[in-house]
Amino acid sequence: MRIRTSADYMDSLKQLSPVIYYQGAVIDDVTTHPGTAPHVRSAAMTYALAAMEEYQDLATAVSHLTGNTISRFTHIHQSTGDLVKKIKLLRVLGQKTGTCFQRCVGLDGLNAVYSVAYEIDQKNGTDYFERFKKWLIHVQDENVMVVGAMTDPKGDRSRGPEHQSDPDQYVHISEHRSDGIVIRGAKLHMTGAVNSHEILVMPTTAMSEASKKYAVVCALPVDAPGVTMIFGRQANDSRRDLRETIDVGNPSFGAVGGEAVIVFDDVFVPREHVFMDGEYDFTGSLVYRFAAHHRANYGACKTGLMDVLTGAVAYLSQAQGAAGGSHVKDKITEMIHLSETLYSSSVACSAEGCSTPSGAFMVDTMLANVCKHNVTRFHFEVARLAVDLAGGFIATLPSEHDLRSEAVGHLVRKYFQGVDAIPVDDRIRIGRLIEAMTGGTAMVESMHGAGSPQAQRIMILREGRLDEKISLAKSLVGIPGKTAGR
Amino acid sequence: MRIRTSADYMDSLKQLSPVIYYQGAVIDDVTTHPGTAPHVRSAAMTYALAAMEEYQDLATAVSHLTGNTISRFTHIHQSTGDLVKKIKLLRVLGQKTGTCFQRCVGLDGLNAVYSVAYEIDQKNGTDYFERFKKWLIHVQDENVMVVGAMTDPKGDRSRGPEHQSDPDQYVHISEHRSDGIVIRGAKLHMTGAVNSHEILVMPTTAMSEASKKYAVVCALPVDAPGVTMIFGRQANDSRRDLRETIDVGNPSFGAVGGEAVIVFDDVFVPREHVFMDGEYDFTGSLVYRFAAHHRANYGACKTGLMDVLTGAVAYLSQAQGAAGGSHVKDKITEMIHLSETLYSSSVACSAEGCSTPSGAFMVDTMLANVCKHNVTRFHFEVARLAVDLAGGFIATLPSEHDLRSEAVGHLVRKYFQGVDAIPVDDRIRIGRLIEAMTGGTAMVESMHGAGSPQAQRIMILREGRLDEKISLAKSLVGIPGKTAGR
Amino acid sequence: MRIRTSADYMDSLKQLSPVIYYQGAVIDDVTTHPGTAPHVRSAAMTYALAAMEEYQDLATAVSHLTGNTISRFTHIHQSTGDLVKKIKLLRVLGQKTGTCFQRCVGLDGLNAVYSVAYEIDQKNGTDYFERFKKWLIHVQDENVMVVGAMTDPKGDRSRGPEHQSDPDQYVHISEHRSDGIVIRGAKLHMTGAVNSHEILVMPTTAMSEASKKYAVVCALPVDAPGVTMIFGRQANDSRRDLRETIDVGNPSFGAVGGEAVIVFDDVFVPREHVFMDGEYDFTGSLVYRFAAHHRANYGACKTGLMDVLTGAVAYLSQAQGAAGGSHVKDKITEMIHLSETLYSSSVACSAEGCSTPSGAFMVDTMLANVCKHNVTRFHFEVARLAVDLAGGFIATLPSEHDLRSEAVGHLVRKYFQGVDAIPVDDRIRIGRLIEAMTGGTAMVESMHGAGSPQAQRIMILREGRLDEKISLAKSLVGIPGKTAGR
Amino acid sequence: MRIRTSADYMDSLKQLSPVIYYQGAVIDDVTTHPGTAPHVRSAAMTYALAAMEEYQDLATAVSHLTGNTISRFTHIHQSTGDLVKKIKLLRVLGQKTGTCFQRCVGLDGLNAVYSVAYEIDQKNGTDYFERFKKWLIHVQDENVMVVGAMTDPKGDRSRGPEHQSDPDQYVHISEHRSDGIVIRGAKLHMTGAVNSHEILVMPTTAMSEASKKYAVVCALPVDAPGVTMIFGRQANDSRRDLRETIDVGNPSFGAVGGEAVIVFDDVFVPREHVFMDGEYDFTGSLVYRFAAHHRANYGACKTGLMDVLTGAVAYLSQAQGAAGGSHVKDKITEMIHLSETLYSSSVACSAEGCSTPSGAFMVDTMLANVCKHNVTRFHFEVARLAVDLAGGFIATLPSEHDLRSEAVGHLVRKYFQGVDAIPVDDRIRIGRLIEAMTGGTAMVESMHGAGSPQAQRIMILREGRLDEKISLAKSLVGIPGKTAGR
Repeated sequence: MRIRTSADYMDSLKQLSPVIYYQGAVIDDVTTHPGTAPHVRSAAMTYALAAMEEYQDLATAVSHLTGNTISRFTHIHQSTGDLVKKIKLLRVLGQKTGTCFQRCVGLDGLNAVYSVAYEIDQKNGTDYFERFKKWLIHVQDENVMVVGAMTDPKGDRSRGPEHQSDPDQYVHISEHRSDGIVIRGAKLHMTGAVNSHEILVMPTTAMSEASKKYAVVCALPVDAPGVTMIFGRQANDSRRDLRETIDVGNPSFGAVGGEAVIVFDDVFVPREHVFMDGEYDFTGSLVYRFAAHHRANYGACKTGLMDVLTGAVAYLSQAQGAAGGSHVKDKITEMIHLSETLYSSSVACSAEGCSTPSGAFMVDTMLANVCKHNVTRFHFEVARLAVDLAGGFIATLPSEHDLRSEAVGHLVRKYFQGVDAIPVDDRIRIGRLIEAMTGGTAMVESMHGAGSPQAQRIMILREGRLDEKISLAKSLVGIPGKTAGR
Repeated sequence: MRIRTSADYMDSLKQLSPVIYYQGAVIDDVTTHPGTAPHVRSAAMTYALAAMEEYQDLATAVSHLTGNTISRFTHIHQSTGDLVKKIKLLRVLGQKTGTCFQRCVGLDGLNAVYSVAYEIDQKNGTDYFERFKKWLIHVQDENVMVVGAMTDPKGDRSRGPEHQSDPDQYVHISEHRSDGIVIRGAKLHMTGAVNSHEILVMPTTAMSEASKKYAVVCALPVDAPGVTMIFGRQANDSRRDLRETIDVGNPSFGAVGGEAVIVFDDVFVPREHVFMDGEYDFTGSLVYRFAAHHRANYGACKTGLMDVLTGAVAYLSQAQGAAGGSHVKDKITEMIHLSETLYSSSVACSAEGCSTPSGAFMVDTMLANVCKHNVTRFHFEVARLAVDLAGGFIATLPSEHDLRSEAVGHLVRKYFQGVDAIPVDDRIRIGRLIEAMTGGTAMVESMHGAGSPQAQRIMILREGRLDEKISLAKSLVGIPGKTAGR
Repeated sequence: MRIRTSADYMDSLKQLSPVIYYQGAVIDDVTTHPGTAPHVRSAAMTYALAAMEEYQDLATAVSHLTGNTISRFTHIHQSTGDLVKKIKLLRVLGQKTGTCFQRCVGLDGLNAVYSVAYEIDQKNGTDYFERFKKWLIHVQDENVMVVGAMTDPKGDRSRGPEHQSDPDQYVHISEHRSDGIVIRGAKLHMTGAVNSHEILVMPTTAMSEASKKYAVVCALPVDAPGVTMIFGRQANDSRRDLRETIDVGNPSFGAVGGEAVIVFDDVFVPREHVFMDGEYDFTGSLVYRFAAHHRANYGACKTGLMDVLTGAVAYLSQAQGAAGGSHVKDKITEMIHLSETLYSSSVACSAEGCSTPSGAFMVDTMLANVCKHNVTRFHFEVARLAVDLAGGFIATLPSEHDLRSEAVGHLVRKYFQGVDAIPVDDRIRIGRLIEAMTGGTAMVESMHGAGSPQAQRIMILREGRLDEKISLAKSLVGIPGKTAGR
Repeated sequence: MRIRTSADYMDSLKQLSPVIYYQGAVIDDVTTHPGTAPHVRSAAMTYALAAMEEYQDLATAVSHLTGNTISRFTHIHQSTGDLVKKIKLLRVLGQKTGTCFQRCVGLDGLNAVYSVAYEIDQKNGTDYFERFKKWLIHVQDENVMVVGAMTDPKGDRSRGPEHQSDPDQYVHISEHRSDGIVIRGAKLHMTGAVNSHEILVMPTTAMSEASKKYAVVCALPVDAPGVTMIFGRQANDSRRDLRETIDVGNPSFGAVGGEAVIVFDDVFVPREHVFMDGEYDFTGSLVYRFAAHHRANYGACKTGLMDVLTGAVAYLSQAQGAAGGSHVKDKITEMIHLSETLYSSSVACSAEGCSTPSGAFMVDTMLANVCKHNVTRFHFEVARLAVDLAGGFIATLPSEHDLRSEAVGHLVRKYFQGVDAIPVDDRIRIGRLIEAMTGGTAMVESMHGAGSPQAQRIMILREGRLDEKISLAKSLVGIPGKTAGR
């Protein structure tokens, strides 16, 4: 791994020159700009952990292609053991950052494209798989961060890609050249995009023959000509941008992954980095595998976040002298219960994974969908319970500026002191952490990252093997044969 | 009513000179300071509505003391009809502001103190009721805005007022003078404090004889010597403070009521404005009546907010071409169902209200507690559904500055366009409104305003008449007599 | 009222000779047959209450047609006060019987037909209203029990009445005669049918012109020639049929209303008892008004049942020495909270009722639908909590026969004794009551009586005034004009 | 395995002569008595499956003691693979029986006692482990069915074993003899007791020194002198007892496991079958291990039941022509989602299991508790959804006797026919199956089997490692050191 440490990662980002806009201005250096720095630090934790003895087993793996020790975030899963270790790694990272650390989206892209490229070649005699492996070895050896770019703007949702007023609402090949392709369009909600090295473009949904030009997979550097990024707003971003410390809540690592729009304005991609070019019949598979991996992950990283939130609330209850209340204990119990319920599905879909024809391991897709679907419920309930136990003060606390002001600082300290044994500053810091982890952007991300709830419900029904279940019921009451209805 | 219109109200605030800090600096004029102006405009709506023909019946009442037409926000409820009209007024105001309009806290304080002052006098032969009526007529005739000040800091929750390390953790009488009293301490989470005219101080909980000095009710102007306010932070307050328009979400009226800490640093209150002085045995009653009225209100104003949120989500679904989906309709149905369930309890506890000895009408306390308790659940669920239907873009939208920038504004417009018929600006504005109404401060306020969930549960069990219910069950199965257990 | 007392009611039933089958045999006398007697006793409570001084105000009313004092169960609501009194009456009856007392279905039919008959006449110049009033006076003066017969079998739900393979799947007019009509078909789930005096037939859904012959409303005696009833099974009906006392749970009043299929095999109805004959354009209205009234009721009678269940569980907790546990108190609090939430909507939709053109008062339909919809959720949750607190013994208790046997009775008594102060028999009786009130039929009835959940959701969305809500949201963010989407 | 097949099992039961009472009379042969026969058939399925090629891998194992192929229900888990296979076996058995098949309670007892006996010996130098292994080999070789007997009556729950008025409220050693012990007391809710071969007695809770005599583990035959069983009532048991076929719902296998009270009236147990005698300090461990294994199982067997229920509802929707409705599909999706969420925890706690000192593998105890806790919620919600989709007819269906009667059978058939393609009998049978699986006993068993909800919450909090979580939160906001509160 060329990029080994957190510092290596920072340096490597400085070598790149992506075009990034934020708040109407250009960001020159994502590692130092206050708007992006916390997100960079969070991603850097994925490098830092791999360098620590204690986490080697979780954070690194041995490449099945080169035999080299690589970051697990660039590994193609070779067993259910690999899948489970990844889950544990994600929970630890969630615990250590309290937020999104961004790199699993690239990992899931690598695994999805790897297995599908293999299957395209098997069917069509193409050479995508070899191209992809070459690029993958580069990713593994360099240990670059890849942003998996899937979600298109989609414009009018009641129409497919080919029926949009603006054809660019879905990323597509605008031109075939002898040495490569030209792509056009945009990807939204791109987690970690501004601090990644490369982009792995994938289609956003299953395509039909009519939308063949939208069936494209390819890789390109973040600073390829024609690529423009616009970094999105987050809840309370100005606290971060103004380099406040307490009121940011989680000042080191931010509230979410740091999402951006990536615009492709006729960007050239050389042939060797094109891994799908019109094979629309494989888009469904690709999207589904990516989604399943990604949904599996949410039950682990979010459990890590909930661990932090549970701890924060427990500590705040102590600070307020309320920790002994039976209803306080009961609500904390519920937070733990919901967290571990989520975690269960992450573990289960990994332990029940199976091999694809390429040898890459997939999670159990039913359980992975169930996992993410519960995130969209339980994370909100856990946040609600945290808000309940935190008390109203997280909505009315005077600002850090008041806390430090000569005029009223002593009043803030006097009247926000809880039990004697815990400093008022600690109480306020923990309050701000809870505020940051339960409000706005953080929760929206949990709802929609890795697919909105309805996307999971569709898959859960599709994979529910209803016919088999009907047979079980009929058999118990002695109804013979196959079901007659629809 | 001296203060009749929204403009009168603004003018009247300019006559006052309260000491207000925010972000480490002083606020000179709350009507123009960007941090407070939206909250002032929201409170002003309570004046504006009373001046509109259409809402006269809801927004005004006839004083039972003077026969004058007064604002309903200064009225002592004389019937269940009054209670129901108030509920309807609050829902309309919630619909028109999309946020807290602050004045019900004073109204509830007036009604609670009125009835309890009467009862103290009946028992003790004191003259609190006459004093209070005099002040009340002033409030009605002037139409001043009163902040009901109840919540003390409380320090270490495992100890009562008299066992705190710092005696000021609860507001108390620090000195009795011949012509009045001196009070000391602070009140937290004071909704509308910075743009009220007067403060009605009330105890925060039932006091015992040992905490007699904490049993104090009195009224004073917001700019009385020794009063200092510190205005609290809210989610995304800097968007508001920087006078952004779109990204604020609800730029006219703000996200919540605008809460402040009020510090009383040995403030003198003349005798004629003291309405309780040591009668600790009436504190329980006072707190409970205030709380019941206030809890009743939450089912109305929050329903108004949910009406807005439901409309916002429905419109956004249209903008995204998703309004026809069965799951979209189903979730909107659920939002309406939960809103109307809340509203039911507001109406029911009002329609089932009854008279106190003073003639002031009280809501049914069981149903009022049930009402608020459901707010702490259903508002969160409605917000969760709104976030679900809104989609991830409310967490990743580029800022207003980007939207307006020459460099990337056209890209934002291009890629956030939904259906052709709805302008991209509208989609973004509605998205930002949903962001503001579902994230952070707005939700915390719903949880804790008018009392945290556990406060309601205690009352629900206490009022549950368990012995009668046990008798019903025993009677059905033929068990004679009274219950033997505890 | 000719039938005044519970005894009068019993006698009156003996005068009738309906054709009733149950368990493959004929029931001769519903007042003494063990399968129907408890249900008769439950209905009789509606007569008994009217005869008790204490409940006169709730249980009786003054007829607006005759000025006579009548049973409220035969009254046309003349005010919101009437609607609220009805609600209170239903809760009391639920508390006193612990089950369905059946008579509100007829009451709701009377009120729905009254107002719609008036409107048909206004439009078409027919004389249904006069006919109906005549019959109504008879109902009031005699104080007969009327079964409101609405639900048709419906066969294949994906097709309308006129497209069924069997035209009898919906009740219809099979022949017009000079002096009346002949009807054919069946009604399912007919609560109280076997112990009613008369049947009020109504259409089950809104009809179109093509299904005009299904648009029929008429009244007939339960023993009219051609009418056959088949009494349905219930959970644990054999315990009742075998005249057990303890194991029945609620031996006096049964588990539900006692539902039957009513078959109309070409039954003649004289003209003066026909109140709709083909006016398909009024069927929607009729069904909707009936449903709204009926849905309003469920929040009251079921609250009465939940009061009993809460009391039962509280007493059982005492018997087991568990009443002091914080989780026990918390679950009982939740049971009360959910019960009172339900009750709120019953009260609210009544207090917010309004007059129809005929002068008959209607409940607020939105809130009535919300009310019933919550029954389909909260009654199950209350039952779940009851099962939680009751403990496993309600699923494994030896039978009453064992309790009384010489061989093992002493062992049952020894090992099911709880705290010393409460007899083991009492514990068992209360356990059996909880078993009966939480299992099977009782819960199914709560789900589907007055319409299945989806029926309410359709109405909640339809009445949600989404356009107004959209305007509220647009107005707040400054979007002008009317919505462009659909 | 001596007892290999279902028929062997039946024969073996006939060799025993346990004393069993039911409905006040003696049961002579549990294999033919209608009250017990379905439960016997359900347990027999555990034998039948082991004899089928297709299920060999799941249903059998290789004994680590003898190397023989044995039933998995007598196996000591040697790996996480074993734990996962057991989970899969339980789901299949749940699918094939639609009810409890009873044998896991003995299996969990074997595994718990095995590991604890080893640890007692390690500490105290006793020989319980050798004794137990000898008995275990007998259990494995004979393939006997063992009932794990844990739950004591407990009398007054507010007092411990040694403070009960009646010392027999907890099973205890009433006498030590030279060759063994004499035990006294009773065990409640004993699943499968009447059709087991042997009883494994275990303490019901952690004992202190003062309750040392209650710390007893031993094995004895079901027909040992002094053992009396009383078989409990179930919902609708008379339908079963009267050998009805359709109305029983699940006529082959019953509604639950068939629970009984086992009374020990001074029963002698020879020393070689005593595996704990006073080692109170190991009772906590024993109970906890048994409970954890048993809680893990519930997520699997109940998922099997929910698979059946989901299939039943899906088929019924087809029969009613309703399967195409979006709300129908959505509710079925929810049923699947909840089922698979449950299943996740069963798989996860198994895959994350670990070895005890004895080599026997334990499940992850946190996830096992989480698993069972979700059963107590989700099974009820799945049942509620099933009742919703089934429609009211499962509460009002005429009986099987009516269906078959000459007088009205044709009417029942005519009016309960749904779509043409599905016979009316099938619709009724499926309706009855849903009725049986959602009402009464079946649900109570889900709530309390393997421990009531509060038992799991206590363990979830205890294992929640709150201190570590607090450290995570403090670390993120820069608070040093250890927590100061309590």
